[in-house]
Amino acid sequence: MNAVGIVVEYNPFHNGHQYHLERSKEVTNADIVIAVMSGNFLQRGEPALVSKWERTKMALHGGCDLVIELPYVFATQKAENFANGAVSILHALKCNSLCFGSEHGEINSFQQTYEFLKKHEEQYNYYIKKFMKEGYSYPRALTLSFQQLEKDSELLDLSQPNNILGYHYVKAINEQKTNIAPFTVKRAAAGYHDTSFSSSNIASATSIRKALFHHNENPIINVVPSFTYASLQNTSTQQWEHYFSLLKYAIMTMSTEELAKIYEMEEGLENRISAAIVESESFQQLMEKLKTKRYTWTRLQRLCTHILTKVKKEEIKKATLTGKAEYIRLLGMSENGRRYLKNIKKDLPIPLIAKVSAFSHPGLTIDIKAAHTYNQIFPEPLRSSLLKAEFSTPPIMY
Amino acid sequence: MNAVGIVVEYNPFHNGHQYHLERSKEVTNADIVIAVMSGNFLQRGEPALVSKWERTKMALHGGCDLVIELPYVFATQKAENFANGAVSILHALKCNSLCFGSEHGEINSFQQTYEFLKKHEEQYNYYIKKFMKEGYSYPRALTLSFQQLEKDSELLDLSQPNNILGYHYVKAINEQKTNIAPFTVKRAAAGYHDTSFSSSNIASATSIRKALFHHNENPIINVVPSFTYASLQNTSTQQWEHYFSLLKYAIMTMSTEELAKIYEMEEGLENRISAAIVESESFQQLMEKLKTKRYTWTRLQRLCTHILTKVKKEEIKKATLTGKAEYIRLLGMSENGRRYLKNIKKDLPIPLIAKVSAFSHPGLTIDIKAAHTYNQIFPEPLRSSLLKAEFSTPPIMY
Repeated sequence: MNAVGIVVEYNPFHNGHQYHLERSKEVTNADIVIAVMSGNFLQRGEPALVSKWERTKMALHGGCDLVIELPYVFATQKAENFANGAVSILHALKCNSLCFGSEHGEINSFQQTYEFLKKHEEQYNYYIKKFMKEGYSYPRALTLSFQQLEKDSELLDLSQPNNILGYHYVKAINEQKTNIAPFTVKRAAAGYHDTSFSSSNIASATSIRKALFHHNENPIINVVPSFTYASLQNTSTQQWEHYFSLLKYAIMTMSTEELAKIYEMEEGLENRISAAIVESESFQQLMEKLKTKRYTWTRLQRLCTHILTKVKKEEIKKATLTGKAEYIRLLGMSENGRRYLKNIKKDLPIPLIAKVSAFSHPGLTIDIKAAHTYNQIFPEPLRSSLLKAEFSTPPIMY
Repeated sequence: MNAVGIVVEYNPFHNGHQYHLERSKEVTNADIVIAVMSGNFLQRGEPALVSKWERTKMALHGGCDLVIELPYVFATQKAENFANGAVSILHALKCNSLCFGSEHGEINSFQQTYEFLKKHEEQYNYYIKKFMKEGYSYPRALTLSFQQLEKDSELLDLSQPNNILGYHYVKAINEQKTNIAPFTVKRAAAGYHDTSFSSSNIASATSIRKALFHHNENPIINVVPSFTYASLQNTSTQQWEHYFSLLKYAIMTMSTEELAKIYEMEEGLENRISAAIVESESFQQLMEKLKTKRYTWTRLQRLCTHILTKVKKEEIKKATLTGKAEYIRLLGMSENGRRYLKNIKKDLPIPLIAKVSAFSHPGLTIDIKAAHTYNQIFPEPLRSSLLKAEFSTPPIMY
């Protein structure tokens, strides 16, 4: 069977995702679609709108055949680590291709950009270092450095978020020496960060979340499939502010020495956070107090996620020794997906996990802690039942 | 000036406390009353009904001249450590006497019991060890061991909670080589643990809290002074269940290795707590799951307090190297109290702290963390203003 891999967050699953999923199958001529999906905390350092289980159902409804959880240690990271984790899982699952959405839409440019940057690596790294020293944030330093290099052909615009991710997928495919064929589909209509609905039936997840939180239900029904709409009607949706109370408690009961051990805590930030939290009455206020030229909003949100889940540098180090995923946590599958798995099961290079109680790995310990954290804000007895479910839920069958 | 020391929790201040306060002044012929009071977490391992600041006001209204915070490292401990901390503060403040309430009511028996147990120390310790090995709780082992010893005279009934505390005050007075004269006042009417109102105007704090939480307001007005009644009408009152959500989050984001570092966590308990918390929907449920013959309810509540405040063995060790208080944190004073302090200030053996921002000590760090923890459950912007107040509130003047 010909399998295409996709890397998703589905926060929530919308018409643009449906388009990407169908086009991915089409352009790669695939029989089955394997989705690697972030768990309860996302790449931009935010709690997911609805849990990974709800989003797995959306993915299966949308046409995915296997839904695999991208471990927390890759999911809540900058593009490079995020892509490395995702590609390593798709490679382990013997995907023939990977198809990602991008602003650019032409796959050749991704490979060319990869080769160009590999050739100019030394110069590129020199500039990155230089711009970082000047106080720019890491993503801004990347963009500026790329602009400094003299290009001999038309390359990618690496200031676009989906181009950046795509570039890192292609890089990981090359450097992990996989034989996955990369494909890209031009993103339809909405920009990644758009906060309003720009075309009639396609909108960015950002704009959909915004509409949801402002109880502006009317337009959502036009831009998401009916199963997403039904799920969002029946499930309470989460956002950072709901976790602020726990975050404040966590920060205020940690010493600065303990805060310094949290993953992504850079020297001195722990003192700023300890001082800022006392008078912050909301997550928004805390972020505004912390924001500087050097630290992007996303970078700070990720840091807050790691404080909330209490994930320490040492834990991430232990869980990412190889830089690749070391287990495959199955969240859901279709009948086709089940058959595919049955075929490749005996050749899997890393363990396949259906129930977490049967397996142990430093990365999985973090995934469980993250799920536990996500579930803390629900009222009892719902909280207890969700916590138990994390241990006992078998993959969702569709 | 002749100063009598008293050791209190005032949770809340009631008519029995008023009686004890007045009798203490009378029997010791004191000009001023110095109260050492637990902060936001109490000896039985519970959050105080209202904050230490509210209870300081009650103490001043009731007639105390100085209110000093008993540091967390003594306040949330078994009787022996509790008494050691309290007596060391009263000694530093040059109290002439200490007057405690007891079921027994005759001071000579306390001194006799102290001398008797000192004489039979070896035998007593042998029995305690033996009963602990048999799985009895520490307080139960003390009672049983005491019963084993052959007494030559009428000694204290050391199964009564206030007799036990009194015994430890007298022991501390002797062993710290202070010249504090001990006095005792027989407790009027209500027993410490009584949960119903047994006489018309005296009731135990336990029964008052019970009446409060069951919104049975009518009888309270008869058993507390008007200032307590007014305070309880205007302030939200706290209990363990209000902190359960934070406790559950704290436990579920700590590894068993991290839990094992928490103060009073005995070997193996961390595993039982980690397992029990998942399905506990309330503090009551958690406690019922943890309760055994070996661990008293109080012992387990104290442990939960230390988890909630994240106080580790290492921290308590650093903060209690001498076994005595190393600072005097002033919460409130009357005009008389202010004059008294002015007189003795230059001879104080340990620092007097009016504002916490000006002083640093491992014990004070824990006190601040405990206050921060206590304040976490209040809604914003109240929470932020309480947190700031903890740093900036000067002693309350009355």
